[in-house]
Formats: sequence, C-alpha cells, structure tokens
Amino acid sequence: MPKEHKVQIIPLGGLGEIGKNMTVVRYDNHMVLIDAGLAFPDDEMLGIDVVIPDYSYLIEHKEMLLGILVTHGHEDHIGALPYLLKDFDVPIFATRLTLGLIQTKLKESNLNQIKATAVQPRDMIKLGPFRIEFIRVSHSIPDSVGIAIHTPLGTIVHTGDFKIDHTPVTGDILDIHKFSELGDKGVLCLMSDSTNVERPGFTMSERRVGEMFEESFRVAKDRIIIASFASNVHRIQQAIQAAYKTNRKVAVVGRSMVNVVAIASELGYLDVPEGTLIDVDEIVNLPGNQACILTTGSQGEPMSALTRMAMNDHRRVEIQPGDTVIISASPIPGNEKSIARTIDHLFKLGANVIYESINGVHVSGHASQEELKLMLNMVRPQYFLPVHGEYRMLVKHTQLAEQLGIPKDNIFLAENGSIIEFTRHGASIAGKVTAGKILIDGLGIGDVGNIVLRDRKQLSQDGILIVVMTISRSTGAIVAGPDVVTRGFVYVRESETMLDEAKEKVRQTMARLRESHVTEWAVLKGQVRDTLSKHFYEKTRRRPMILPIIQEIE
Amino acid sequence: MPKEHKVQIIPLGGLGEIGKNMTVVRYDNHMVLIDAGLAFPDDEMLGIDVVIPDYSYLIEHKEMLLGILVTHGHEDHIGALPYLLKDFDVPIFATRLTLGLIQTKLKESNLNQIKATAVQPRDMIKLGPFRIEFIRVSHSIPDSVGIAIHTPLGTIVHTGDFKIDHTPVTGDILDIHKFSELGDKGVLCLMSDSTNVERPGFTMSERRVGEMFEESFRVAKDRIIIASFASNVHRIQQAIQAAYKTNRKVAVVGRSMVNVVAIASELGYLDVPEGTLIDVDEIVNLPGNQACILTTGSQGEPMSALTRMAMNDHRRVEIQPGDTVIISASPIPGNEKSIARTIDHLFKLGANVIYESINGVHVSGHASQEELKLMLNMVRPQYFLPVHGEYRMLVKHTQLAEQLGIPKDNIFLAENGSIIEFTRHGASIAGKVTAGKILIDGLGIGDVGNIVLRDRKQLSQDGILIVVMTISRSTGAIVAGPDVVTRGFVYVRESETMLDEAKEKVRQTMARLRESHVTEWAVLKGQVRDTLSKHFYEKTRRRPMILPIIQEIE
Repeated sequence: MPKEHKVQIIPLGGLGEIGKNMTVVRYDNHMVLIDAGLAFPDDEMLGIDVVIPDYSYLIEHKEMLLGILVTHGHEDHIGALPYLLKDFDVPIFATRLTLGLIQTKLKESNLNQIKATAVQPRDMIKLGPFRIEFIRVSHSIPDSVGIAIHTPLGTIVHTGDFKIDHTPVTGDILDIHKFSELGDKGVLCLMSDSTNVERPGFTMSERRVGEMFEESFRVAKDRIIIASFASNVHRIQQAIQAAYKTNRKVAVVGRSMVNVVAIASELGYLDVPEGTLIDVDEIVNLPGNQACILTTGSQGEPMSALTRMAMNDHRRVEIQPGDTVIISASPIPGNEKSIARTIDHLFKLGANVIYESINGVHVSGHASQEELKLMLNMVRPQYFLPVHGEYRMLVKHTQLAEQLGIPKDNIFLAENGSIIEFTRHGASIAGKVTAGKILIDGLGIGDVGNIVLRDRKQLSQDGILIVVMTISRSTGAIVAGPDVVTRGFVYVRESETMLDEAKEKVRQTMARLRESHVTEWAVLKGQVRDTLSKHFYEKTRRRPMILPIIQEIE
Repeated sequence: MPKEHKVQIIPLGGLGEIGKNMTVVRYDNHMVLIDAGLAFPDDEMLGIDVVIPDYSYLIEHKEMLLGILVTHGHEDHIGALPYLLKDFDVPIFATRLTLGLIQTKLKESNLNQIKATAVQPRDMIKLGPFRIEFIRVSHSIPDSVGIAIHTPLGTIVHTGDFKIDHTPVTGDILDIHKFSELGDKGVLCLMSDSTNVERPGFTMSERRVGEMFEESFRVAKDRIIIASFASNVHRIQQAIQAAYKTNRKVAVVGRSMVNVVAIASELGYLDVPEGTLIDVDEIVNLPGNQACILTTGSQGEPMSALTRMAMNDHRRVEIQPGDTVIISASPIPGNEKSIARTIDHLFKLGANVIYESINGVHVSGHASQEELKLMLNMVRPQYFLPVHGEYRMLVKHTQLAEQLGIPKDNIFLAENGSIIEFTRHGASIAGKVTAGKILIDGLGIGDVGNIVLRDRKQLSQDGILIVVMTISRSTGAIVAGPDVVTRGFVYVRESETMLDEAKEKVRQTMARLRESHVTEWAVLKGQVRDTLSKHFYEKTRRRPMILPIIQEIE
C-alpha cells in the first residue's frame, strides 16, 4: 500500500498571543511559510528588545521549505525575516508595498541579496505541489492580502489580518468574489483573524476617521499635530487630504513616519497634492491655521517624536497653547499608562488633545463579529482554525464558528506547535513540534534564558550587594576587606552605619568559620550570604542579591 | 488695620493622578485634613511597594492640625494613615465601616492607641473654627461620605468619591437634599471627583450587576467563582444574594476578602442568610450547581487567589472544566496584561470566563458626566476645584463646569501643592507648598530616590558585571584576579571565551597604566570600566553596569 498523503498546518506563532505570526503549511515533504513576525517583550522580559518564534522546526526541515508568503507589512508579520533569512535562502512572495517595507528592513540588517517576487492580488504562483493565490483584504496598512494554498488534498485559506471596509480610502474592497468562489469550489480549512472577535457588530470604515479629521481641522484655529502608526498609510493619506482641503501644509516628523511616507510615495501608495508636503523647519514659521504636523509616538514610546514634544524635548517642534494634538490610534495593551502620561503632559503645555476614548479619531483594522461571520459563511470551510489572537479570543472564535453550523469536531483550538493534520479520511491534531519564544537582546539571539531574566528581576527589585575580601591561603586570615559595594539597594550615604555593621558581621562569621577549620569557599560564601541576608532583611525588609567574592593570595 | 482672614485649600495628592488623595483645608492657623491615601508604584518605580504624598507641609505646621476627616475606606484614601499617624496624634473622624477598615490597617502597623470618632451622615462636628458635616454619597464601598466644612469665610464642599445610584443595594441614596440645601445657602468652593468625567451619560446602578449575577448563576450548570475587589461590600452582598436565590452555598477565599467579609458582617453591613456561608473545604465537596466561591484577584495580582487558581497553584480550589468564572471588576490602568493572562489560563483549564468587555458584570463607582453636572448644579458653588483625576480629566471637568455657567476665572486647574486661597475679596492661586511622592520600599520611607531607582533600572536591562582584583601596594602588581562575576548579563556557560578575553583586557589595561605610573584608583577603575564597556558592547550590544573593585595588600 502506498504511503498516505498528508497536509499539515503547523502554527509556530500567533496562537494565544497577538504577535510573532508564523504558520507552516506542509504537504508531504514540501513546505511553505506564511509570515514571519516578531512580538514585543512582556513586562517580565526585562531588557529584551524583541521576541521571535522558535523556528527550530524549520531548521530541522530546511530542505523542504519552498518559500515565504507574506500577507502584509506589519512588524508582527515581517519582523522575524532578518533573523530567518540568515538561515534560509528561500524566495519571498509579497505585494509591492509589503516588499518595499521588507527590503528597507533587511537592508538595515545588511541582507541585500534576497530572492523576492512582487505579487498582486489575484496572482497565482506555483511552488512545488502548491498553487498559491493572493486575495485582496482591507487592513490598517495598504496592499494586505489573504492567501489560498491549493494542495492535492484541498485548499487552505488564510485571511491574514483583515476587516471588510466597504468604503476604503484607496484601492478596491476586500475580494468578496474570490473568497466566495473559493467557498463555492470547496475549502478544506480556513484560518481567520481573531483579534476583534470580542467586538459585536461591524468595524467602522477607515473613511470615518477622515471625516473626523476634516471636522477637527476646520474647528482648530491653530496648528494640528497628528500622531499615528507610521505604517497606516491610509491614515496618513486622510490627514494629508484633510490638510489640503483646509488649506494647511503638512510636515512629517519621526524617523519611521518619514521612511514610510518616502516608500509609499515612491511606490504610488500615497497621493500628495503638489506643494502640500513641506519641511518641518518651514512649517514652524507658518501661521498656525496653515500648519499640520504628522508624527510618530501614538503609543507614548519614550524616544518617539510626540513623547519628546510632550516633554518639551523635541529639537524642532515646540508645543504651544492652542495646538490641537490628535492621537489617532488605540493603545496596544500595556501602553495605556505611557499614553495617558503623554496626553497629560500635552494638556499641561496648553494643547487641546483629542484621543480615542473621547472621539472617533481611530478605527480598528480588524474584523468584528459580523465580518468574521461573513468570512466564515463566504468561505464555508470544512475545517476551521482560528488564528491571530490571545487564547480567550480563539475560544470565542470557535464559539462563533459553531453558531454558524461548523461541527464542533471540525474546529481546532490549537496552540503554537500543534500539528493539524489532514488526510483523505479526516483531520486531527497529530502531535506537536517545538515552538516557543526566542528572546533577542542586542546581538544575542536566544542566549538570554530564565536564569538571566530571573537575575534581572531580582536586581530590579532590591538591587545588589557585593562583599569582597582577600584571604591568605596559608593562614586563612582576611588580609584585605571585607569591602561592601551596593547598587540599587539603599542610598549609601544614609546607610553607612548599617553597612559598617554588615562588614563587622562578615568578619565575625569568617572568624567563627576559621576557628571551626571550615575552608571550603562554597561554605564560607554561603554563610556570609545568609548572615547578610538576615541582617539586611531585619533592617530594611528588602532582599538584595548578595554576592560574596573571595580572592586568595599566598 | 487687622490682618485679613483667609481660607486655603491645599491638595497634597490626588491632582494629576488617581491615588494618594490628601487635601488640607486651612483657616488662618487652623487646619483639617481630608483623607490620607496611598498610590501604587508606576512601572519605573522598580521595587517600590507603595507611594504616599509628601506631607512635609503638615509636619511644618504640626500644631495647626485639628483632625483628619476620611471620606471612605479605599486604600487611595486611607493607605497613608499608618505613616502619618506615627507623626501626628490627632483625632480621626469617619463612618463606622471606614473606621473598621482603618483600625484593621493600623493594627497591622502596631498603632492601637488612636483617637477615632465614628460619625454618621448628617452628623455635625466642631473642630476649632470649623463646623463639619458628613453627607451620604454612593460609591463602590458602603458608608462613603462627602464633607462640608463651614468656615467663617464660607462653606467648602468635598464630594469624596461618588456616583448617584438611585437604586442602591443597601442604605439610602446620595443625600440630594443636603447637597441642595448647601447649594441653597451658598457654597464657597466645591471639590468634585473627576475620575469618570470622560464618560458621557450616567453610570449604571450597582443593582444592574446583581441582575447579571442572578442570570449567570441560573444558566451555569456547575460551580460559580466570582472575583471582585474585597472592599466592594455591595458586590459581595449581591453575589451572596444571587447564590441564595439559586440555591448555592458561598465560600470566601483570599485573605483580604475574608477580612472584609468579617468586618462588614460584624458591623452589620452584610446581610447573609443563615447557612449560606460555608467553609471552602466543605464547598469543594458540594455538587457544582450548589457552589459559589467568592475570591480576590480581579486585577490578575500575582499572589492572589484567582491567579493561583488560574495557574493551578491554589491550595484548596482547583479549576475544573465547566466552572464559570466571573471577573467582576474593570482593569486598573496598567493591569490589563496580567488580567488577560489570568483569563487565558482559566480558559485553558476549561472554565467559562465572563469578564467586563463581553458582559455587564461590573459597573463603576464614579459619577459620569450627567451626574457630575447634577452635583455642580445642586451645589452651584461660587468657585470650583476639580479633584481626584489625571490631569486630562481635571481639564475636562473644568470644561464641564464652564458649560454649566461657572465663570472661567472661578475654576481652578491646580496641581498638588497649589494654595487655593479665599478672602473676603476673592480667590486666587497664591503660591505652592512642597508636594510630591514619598516612595515606600520595605521599612524604608523615602530613602529610595532617583539614584537607587536609576541603578535598579540599569540592572534590570542588562545586568551587572563585577571585576575584582587584589594589587600589591608596594609593586602595583596584580596578586589575585582579575576575577569576573556577572548576573543578569549573559548566560555564563556560553560566554566563557568572551569573559576570558575580558580578563585579559583588564590585565593589559592595568599593565599599561602601571608602566605609565598611574596609581590613582579612580583612574584605574575608570579605564578598566571603559575598556570593558567597549568590549562587551561590541560583542553583545548590551550595556551592563560594570563595577571594578580593587583591593590592596602590603
């Protein structure tokens, strides 16, 4: 009997989290990868820059990988490429803007020799046993696509990040006809975006934000400063449009915003009326009611342009009473406090701040419940795998699918690393591959693990205390020290007595051990540590890391 | 000409923040204090336990302080009392439940000998030149009051934290008649709660939550586990009521919840039907549809009962598939991620989780815009001072007051420490007193300042590297070491080569300096630090704290 053919879907990231999306689709010994994104570190990942999926599964099956398909240009979908492409020399397929953003990113990592192919929605490519179609969707960055992968066992559809915007700012609407056609012909499995599954109804059209902009621009008697995600080209387009209509010039501030505007303009994704964009040094000399500044910092990021302006620390833009600041974004979970702080500082400088919770100056890029239902009903897949969401969202998405009549047994609540396997006879979760996080800290890829993080955590709470002494090998006597050095524990100038007492306690402990003829360093250090730990806890109720260091001379 | 009499309001906390409320009301040389609360530390206050207002102004005017008036028993209104009462021997005035909570708190700090007077709404007390009335308000803890302070120059009204709940769970509604009467007779200045000023409309009645509870309790075929703030006695009352109506027994889990239920029952603020409360060890043996567990942990606090249950780490309660967990609270800003994590873990254990964003299982305890307008119109003060809110909320509240016709010049947008001064001839901001934060870390009150926090921050990001050596005083030669110890920087086992290179570089640097006859330790240490800093940044792109320690022997 010949070996049975199999299709496998293996999510390596994006399940149980919003971030670091990466999904393997495999047919026998051929694989394609959908997206390769990063995530930002959690609070407890102290000092970590970014997080990427553990892709050891790809390394182990290097020769099977035929290509990487990218749905859109957000960091959580492209941010792992600079790391991945050091290990793999495979072609990338993406739309033009996505590719533009990827290439900028790779250049920063000195990766210039990549194999990249620009595709358009409705393009069909062939990779090994796969025929792959790209399908236009709406999202908060232009040129976003879903992907259909036709395998000999059936068609797999991945929505990418999407919403259904019936009145998009530029370009066509989500390709209802293609999704319907696929549904008509039969889809084996649908993977769909779960980000907004907790929201009833429909997500508002991006165009709504443009209306709010125009209204605010007309009302404002002075300058407008808008902060948004740099990658939200439609948002930038609408700000430029509103400025043009209300006779304002526009200046762009903030490195990533400047970059994206350059790329998007060059590739034809931004329509800027002649003479509208001017330099920031010129705009500060215009009357306020003719000025609009586009900037980064909508998440209150410490080094961003808007945060610097709020702190009165920006080189070129100074907030003035009467300025209207529009924060056109919603807080990413975890950023609430830094955004609130930025808003407060702007108010204190006399600006009028317009932000989401009091005004519709932002709409989401992800589908709400009714859109998710429409997607499920268009594609009407045999099997369903909710992706791109925290665990509670995946649960909610499975419930939604059940309500629409997809049998419970055909819905997979999977985790990163799950193998969802399809044969002629059915589908099941058939095991698990290695999946997890690789923490990036500076040049270190994956070298910071639990021990280092645990130490950073302890250091961050109560600091460190180092006690150093030199002892004589022959006599065991202390010949230099004990010296005590602390950082992040107490204010040393006000703690001299306590630290002197500590030295005395160390001397006593060492003397006692010497009388008992204890000479093993591990024991000496352990006893010193215990003595000091008790001493300082009694005096301060703090538990600094205590590090005894002993040196020996003849 | 005799000296002009003055009334001053001096907020020492609570402006530009939600937390550590504390307000001085002064007439000539007589003062009362309204509330003495704490705040929880911001993210950047590493290792700090709690934050209280800098009350040096009170210390400087110790002999003027006649008493402390407390509006209600929340931590942000009573949490600074254990610190304050070590410095002041003044009477406290509060309602019974508030006093019960204060006394429990003070006992934990071994402060048993306090002068406390229980008051009731509509009570009038006399303190020096002040006549003081307590006025019933609704809030998320029973026995909350606002305060009217009659001074020879006019009446000051402070709302405390309030909402207007027309159908409260127990007790009477907010004392509309008293506030109106005060307004009728004339109020000099109103201080009003700004927390929910961004929300249009009315805040829903607490009773609404009871209805949702009852519905959820009826639908659930298995156990109910409700997490809420321990101090929300009305919420607890409603959970007990819903359990009783649906034939469930109730067990209370979590130290603070057990404490509050005990105090509230003893003082008659909880109405528990006979036999409804049972021990948690009994409840786990009941059929699921007869069980309800009340617990703490609604904010995803790491050590709380609910978080332990979610982590499968609670001694007595194990989450089972079919359990319904109701999180009856909204996230305090900053806690969003830990709550989301708790919810995810509960879903993974098979529980059905009901939380605010998908269901009305929580209502706020603070007034929305229409209630704030009603308060302003009832009291119709001559001057208005918005309190209890982040800066943007205070701004919004001043705008609200302006809309209602209070002249702009009579509205004060103040900060902590501002002196709002009233005389027969008018009012103005007349300077500033010391105000700020005192950070509490273990037993240390205010000893952790910027230097310690900056060190903790650096330690938390890239860890520390200590290089130790002993040198001979006579020759300047290294006689022991250099030894290198790191924590929180790199994984040592995988970094041996880099660390050995570092030692070699230290040896070279020391040798070079010795040849140049450099002997000052500061220079030696500085050069070693620079050399290593460069070395490690090149190798890792990290910047650990580098601490050279040199010992000297004869």
